[in-house]
Amino acid sequence: MNSNIPKTSQKRVVIIGAGFGGLALARKLSAYPEIQTVLLDKNNFHQFQPLFYQVAMAGLEPSSISFPLRKAFQNKLHVHIRVTEVLRIDTDKREVVTSTMGGISYDYLVIAAGAGTNFFGMQNIIDRALPMKSVGEALALRNRMLENFERALIADDIEDRQGLMNVVVVGGGPTGVELSGTLAEMKVHILPKDYPELDFRQMQIYLVEAGAELLGPMSVESQVKSKQYLQNLGVHVLLNSRVTDYDGQHVHLLDGTILRTDNLVWAAGVKANTFEGIPVEKLGRGGRLKANEFCQVEGYDNIFAIGDVAILSGDDKFPGGHPQLAQPAIQQGKILAENLLRLIRGEEMKGFRYKDLGSMATVGRNLAVVDLPFLKFQGFLAWMTWMFVHLMSIVGVKNRLLIFINWIWSYITYDQSLRLIIRAKEPKLKPVIHESVEVNPS
Amino acid sequence: MNSNIPKTSQKRVVIIGAGFGGLALARKLSAYPEIQTVLLDKNNFHQFQPLFYQVAMAGLEPSSISFPLRKAFQNKLHVHIRVTEVLRIDTDKREVVTSTMGGISYDYLVIAAGAGTNFFGMQNIIDRALPMKSVGEALALRNRMLENFERALIADDIEDRQGLMNVVVVGGGPTGVELSGTLAEMKVHILPKDYPELDFRQMQIYLVEAGAELLGPMSVESQVKSKQYLQNLGVHVLLNSRVTDYDGQHVHLLDGTILRTDNLVWAAGVKANTFEGIPVEKLGRGGRLKANEFCQVEGYDNIFAIGDVAILSGDDKFPGGHPQLAQPAIQQGKILAENLLRLIRGEEMKGFRYKDLGSMATVGRNLAVVDLPFLKFQGFLAWMTWMFVHLMSIVGVKNRLLIFINWIWSYITYDQSLRLIIRAKEPKLKPVIHESVEVNPS
Repeated sequence: MNSNIPKTSQKRVVIIGAGFGGLALARKLSAYPEIQTVLLDKNNFHQFQPLFYQVAMAGLEPSSISFPLRKAFQNKLHVHIRVTEVLRIDTDKREVVTSTMGGISYDYLVIAAGAGTNFFGMQNIIDRALPMKSVGEALALRNRMLENFERALIADDIEDRQGLMNVVVVGGGPTGVELSGTLAEMKVHILPKDYPELDFRQMQIYLVEAGAELLGPMSVESQVKSKQYLQNLGVHVLLNSRVTDYDGQHVHLLDGTILRTDNLVWAAGVKANTFEGIPVEKLGRGGRLKANEFCQVEGYDNIFAIGDVAILSGDDKFPGGHPQLAQPAIQQGKILAENLLRLIRGEEMKGFRYKDLGSMATVGRNLAVVDLPFLKFQGFLAWMTWMFVHLMSIVGVKNRLLIFINWIWSYITYDQSLRLIIRAKEPKLKPVIHESVEVNPS
Repeated sequence: MNSNIPKTSQKRVVIIGAGFGGLALARKLSAYPEIQTVLLDKNNFHQFQPLFYQVAMAGLEPSSISFPLRKAFQNKLHVHIRVTEVLRIDTDKREVVTSTMGGISYDYLVIAAGAGTNFFGMQNIIDRALPMKSVGEALALRNRMLENFERALIADDIEDRQGLMNVVVVGGGPTGVELSGTLAEMKVHILPKDYPELDFRQMQIYLVEAGAELLGPMSVESQVKSKQYLQNLGVHVLLNSRVTDYDGQHVHLLDGTILRTDNLVWAAGVKANTFEGIPVEKLGRGGRLKANEFCQVEGYDNIFAIGDVAILSGDDKFPGGHPQLAQPAIQQGKILAENLLRLIRGEEMKGFRYKDLGSMATVGRNLAVVDLPFLKFQGFLAWMTWMFVHLMSIVGVKNRLLIFINWIWSYITYDQSLRLIIRAKEPKLKPVIHESVEVNPS
């Protein structure tokens, strides 16, 4: 197979990744006929990462926070979407080598591949814990937890049963806080109704964080309040605690504590996605690609990096790089579109300066924390703000409507109604691949 | 592990299957404290089978037509739901042997296990075709078709590309008619926008039926009209055609015709689900359990069968058994609840007489066929009727609301917006099963 992307006189921009950064960039580029955009992603949809935890907690459907890429670029004849995996980058030949199409050449390459879960090399955790960096992983967490409640019902002894009901969430960032808070509310409002045969006083929820506070990069007010909210909901918050091992039932902490659980959620760290072909010396902290203020990767003038995968220099307010959030990625994607145009037209590029719009996290009903540049607030108003901002950020009017209905419904009924263990049931034989992958020999 | 279902002085009714029949029965029984109900199903949800095709065609989410069983029986302390597989039935010991809990004893057993796909023993079809008898299978069909359009984009030659785009649907019942009709509309309204790089004149949709007409059990008017609707939409309707083999790319018909497709949908027949322990001589046509007018399986006074799995005698209007549809199952489930109560109270049972409410099928926008007992009509009004009846039959107010919004949205925008290839991404290691299955030695 080959890419079937026509060679034209346009400059070709190849983008790896359709996350916040890649999508913002591709959308902007699609307005300029002098550019041929090739958008590569493993999935045929864009994922709205900030709401993964609601998918995991049976509050939202995966489809509500996923948007088909092709729908975003309907009738854009000079945008070519390819669902594939990037195997490596050949910077000499200026091509990206994919799992399904061999090499795709580029004039400009934008790496917007985001970050994956950092398990810090612990194989037992990699094999058994549940990460939360994709819609598919969030769905797997939902399935696992629901299955374990079913198994708790038929467990022989109380320790087994408790292990199946307990949940240990590792990582005190927004995902960890939001997951454990939602879970604590489900323990009170939903689970006892669904499983009247189980005694939910036996169920314990732990949030384990290696640092001294939750929500590390946020304000002290937010850190203190979020911890207090969680503790009021009954979550055991363990700070300064590091997980060292997991056998599928016992979580070992550095201080010798052992927590019993069949449900270990790993939201403890991220690691930038890297590709063979980019020299290791281009990688900075967290495996992020070192780039200048124009998003150009060190040593290349036609390879760019944006979003979680990049660490830009030149922004005085953020000497250590920008936070790995949606906003920096989106802003970088937008300015890079303009800069690519300037580059092609022989004009001077503009350096990136991050406009910090603040950050926020939600803990539960009426409970959230918001840090705006000049204002910090918590509680009900913060919660309303959180909902409004997230609703407005979702791609697609219909998704917005469906999420809104789901949220209103959950608020009124105290229910998370999607407690379904559903898997696609594929036929035994996978379809034949007509031809093997052809990786151009060098 | 064991079932952890308490032994009480109540009579225990074990129901296998939470489809239309089993759910109707369990709901009705749950009102009577003198009965302990045990509801067994492979899934933790009830599935609304008539809309599977809309899940497959990316029009509805699986969750919209699935309803969590536990939500249906919240706070019902004498209903015990267990998600498990039934391995066999031991009629001597009066117990059902399961995959996870060993044996569960019963006073009364109700087999409501429904019907699965009948591949007529053709192994190549079993391995490669896409059946449509569960939400999981509908989802697999959606994934497969979307993946094949992605593969078509990068196919080397035109025949490969066409095979990836073509769809062959086998079976001219409601599912086959509804699937091929929806697909034909997508081919016109959606797919060319999503894939402007593909030429959709190359895509062919075939509906293959072994009989002389579509919608076998319906009226001649409905049969003729539905065929005409489909042909107007561009579907190739092949009647009196039988599939004999499939290698993953070529569908062989009995008359020597070969159709090229990577997407073979199998909706050609059903086969009742059977269990070891029930003697073969109790099985009638299609593997259905022969039962009397009280749903009692031949030769047993404490084993009952309802729905697709049963073939009841004694209803003069239906000497060959009732149609395998939702309505007979629901009506049987309701009367069986009453009859079980009568049996326990020492009263006389009432024989089942099916009240035929009619049948219907939809082909596409504004196109449906409806057969009511004294009235047959087709077209727009039939289509509105179809939508109203299905919307009202769905379990759960929220599901009803979400489906209604989805339908309105699709109607206005001509869009099926859930074109997402999503799979739960499970960790490498499955959770440890604490104890092996213990099947009571005899």
